[in-house]
Amino acid sequence: MIFQTIRQQQPLIHCITNYVVANFQANGLLAIGASPVMADDCQEVEEMVAIAQALLINIGTLNDRTKSAMLLAGIKANALGIPVILDPVGVGATTYRKETVRHLLENIQFAVIRCNLGELAAIAGVDWQQKGVDSGQGTIAMEVEATSLAQRYQCIVIVTGERDFITDGKHSQWIAGGHPQMTEVTGTGCLLSAICGAAYSVSHSPYQQLMETLTYYKKAGVLASAFTADIGDFQIAFLNAIHRLSKDGAASCIL
Amino acid sequence: MIFQTIRQQQPLIHCITNYVVANFQANGLLAIGASPVMADDCQEVEEMVAIAQALLINIGTLNDRTKSAMLLAGIKANALGIPVILDPVGVGATTYRKETVRHLLENIQFAVIRCNLGELAAIAGVDWQQKGVDSGQGTIAMEVEATSLAQRYQCIVIVTGERDFITDGKHSQWIAGGHPQMTEVTGTGCLLSAICGAAYSVSHSPYQQLMETLTYYKKAGVLASAFTADIGDFQIAFLNAIHRLSKDGAASCIL
Amino acid sequence: MIFQTIRQQQPLIHCITNYVVANFQANGLLAIGASPVMADDCQEVEEMVAIAQALLINIGTLNDRTKSAMLLAGIKANALGIPVILDPVGVGATTYRKETVRHLLENIQFAVIRCNLGELAAIAGVDWQQKGVDSGQGTIAMEVEATSLAQRYQCIVIVTGERDFITDGKHSQWIAGGHPQMTEVTGTGCLLSAICGAAYSVSHSPYQQLMETLTYYKKAGVLASAFTADIGDFQIAFLNAIHRLSKDGAASCIL
Repeated sequence: MIFQTIRQQQPLIHCITNYVVANFQANGLLAIGASPVMADDCQEVEEMVAIAQALLINIGTLNDRTKSAMLLAGIKANALGIPVILDPVGVGATTYRKETVRHLLENIQFAVIRCNLGELAAIAGVDWQQKGVDSGQGTIAMEVEATSLAQRYQCIVIVTGERDFITDGKHSQWIAGGHPQMTEVTGTGCLLSAICGAAYSVSHSPYQQLMETLTYYKKAGVLASAFTADIGDFQIAFLNAIHRLSKDGAASCIL
Repeated sequence: MIFQTIRQQQPLIHCITNYVVANFQANGLLAIGASPVMADDCQEVEEMVAIAQALLINIGTLNDRTKSAMLLAGIKANALGIPVILDPVGVGATTYRKETVRHLLENIQFAVIRCNLGELAAIAGVDWQQKGVDSGQGTIAMEVEATSLAQRYQCIVIVTGERDFITDGKHSQWIAGGHPQMTEVTGTGCLLSAICGAAYSVSHSPYQQLMETLTYYKKAGVLASAFTADIGDFQIAFLNAIHRLSKDGAASCIL
Repeated sequence: MIFQTIRQQQPLIHCITNYVVANFQANGLLAIGASPVMADDCQEVEEMVAIAQALLINIGTLNDRTKSAMLLAGIKANALGIPVILDPVGVGATTYRKETVRHLLENIQFAVIRCNLGELAAIAGVDWQQKGVDSGQGTIAMEVEATSLAQRYQCIVIVTGERDFITDGKHSQWIAGGHPQMTEVTGTGCLLSAICGAAYSVSHSPYQQLMETLTYYKKAGVLASAFTADIGDFQIAFLNAIHRLSKDGAASCIL
């Protein structure tokens, strides 16, 4: 199982990420046996990404300093063949985020874009009412837009929600499961993007293994929700769940 | 009950805040059904605050970049009638914090100032020995100074401590309760300020509903302390408690 | 016991630290009765450190702004006789970190350097393959290099790992114990550095009391691991454990 493979190979994931979820992301990566490293300054990101197995770019609390670091790190990762994951947090909320994401997409070849429905709509240029960094409301031909995005940027696109959708532009798949509590804790989407980086870096067939990643991430949500209905406990139970899955694999899913 | 109203209306709270408590604040807002969004750069805060129902300005780990963002966001929020909450973290500790708070107070109309005793003393210009971001020691005519502050800046002033004091410059109220463990976890004051933003944004009579917010926040502390004497557990139990209060209301308080 | 002494004296620890572990560090310091204050801007660090009992410099997510603040704060602390702790997080990973640490060591008199094996190798100029902020792999004459570092910079050097090593350049000691789960949660090393600052600030014989700090920190790991094999729970159980040790002392160690 993919979490077990990550634990065996212990990839180093360089995260240029937001300060809201940095701790949760670091602990989540450690929970499945990956090594996180957070570094976001232009003076060191090229060297840091060069020793990493994947790069995560998350625009959650961006500014011009970290935006420059994202570009440098992404271009360097491309030159070295290191997969880059984009998490366009709240891209629909401001012009600055939209322009940053456009600029990143123009200059970096991403391996995976992991977003929610509102973020997909913003990237696709669909009219949409984004609510901060949450998904928001509107109407979008989701499968069409996600597939088109995957084709345009030659990458895998993952749109998470009640059901997840994954496409590489040719194939696509819906993944059901999970639990609503996953949306009541900050950073579950951000952590998933980081884990997608880890999964991609240890994979020979990324599309298949990212499908498995989504499947088991949802299972972790179900496992955690079985332990508690309380939202403080849930964030801890969720880390416990991905930890167990990375150790015992599917066996952990038998409650 | 106010937490239930927040859960029903799900206001978006734009936080310009410190990186120590950002995760706890985000999870705490989510726990009562509000939506947090953290964004602190001048390039986007005006657009971000425009889609929010309240703005929180917390000076915990400020620098000139975020200070400028606080000013831009606050002025924009005023123009749009969006309530702004000030949390003057550790304002008495350094000249930079004092001058920043003075500058913010001169340029932004705050709806609420939420502070501790040491911070009140610093803003009021009373001689006081602040201990970092903790309350510190000294003598202050607290009711007089808080009321005077509320009158001068035409806002509600909340001074939290063993007992909380709230005043709108005309009325005032003491609120007892709570538990000392609340001071042993970082960010309980910061989270309260963010929740005051949420409460204000959904209220027709903010003064009343902020009183209720303070009352139930203290009840949450008591609820959490009933579950554990351990301080690691307490931060989680506290999130559980506000979560339950926002779902079940006063029923959660019957242990 | 040292944690009890810290709780009695409640030292204020000024942390210039990384945003990944800031929350965990703050809660960890609070758990043993110390007061954390995070402030990292040049405009205020000299004033902030002047009211603190110790200064922690942690280069985890550094940039030129915070690097300048580290220098200013460290030089001021030296002038005032306030102990300064260096945590050279991931110093071997990039040239920027190496040069920053060299610059800090040249300009600030540190009381303690707390690092892992890979970080020691990088400072000592030994060939080593650092893995991000983790220890990495290589061969090093550890006792020799740590002792040499302690002599060169006239400070106490602590190298943590499966066994910890402490030296003041004349004496040295190995400390066994602990639990592997301590490396599976982000920030246990960073928190230890902050606690070393607290311990140093309340000590008449720092070398002895830092040995005790290391001993009880490892006991806390064992205590926490006795409660859970799950990694989410462990971070909470660890805060509980240091909290108990600071209240009950060695009595907490009888399981």
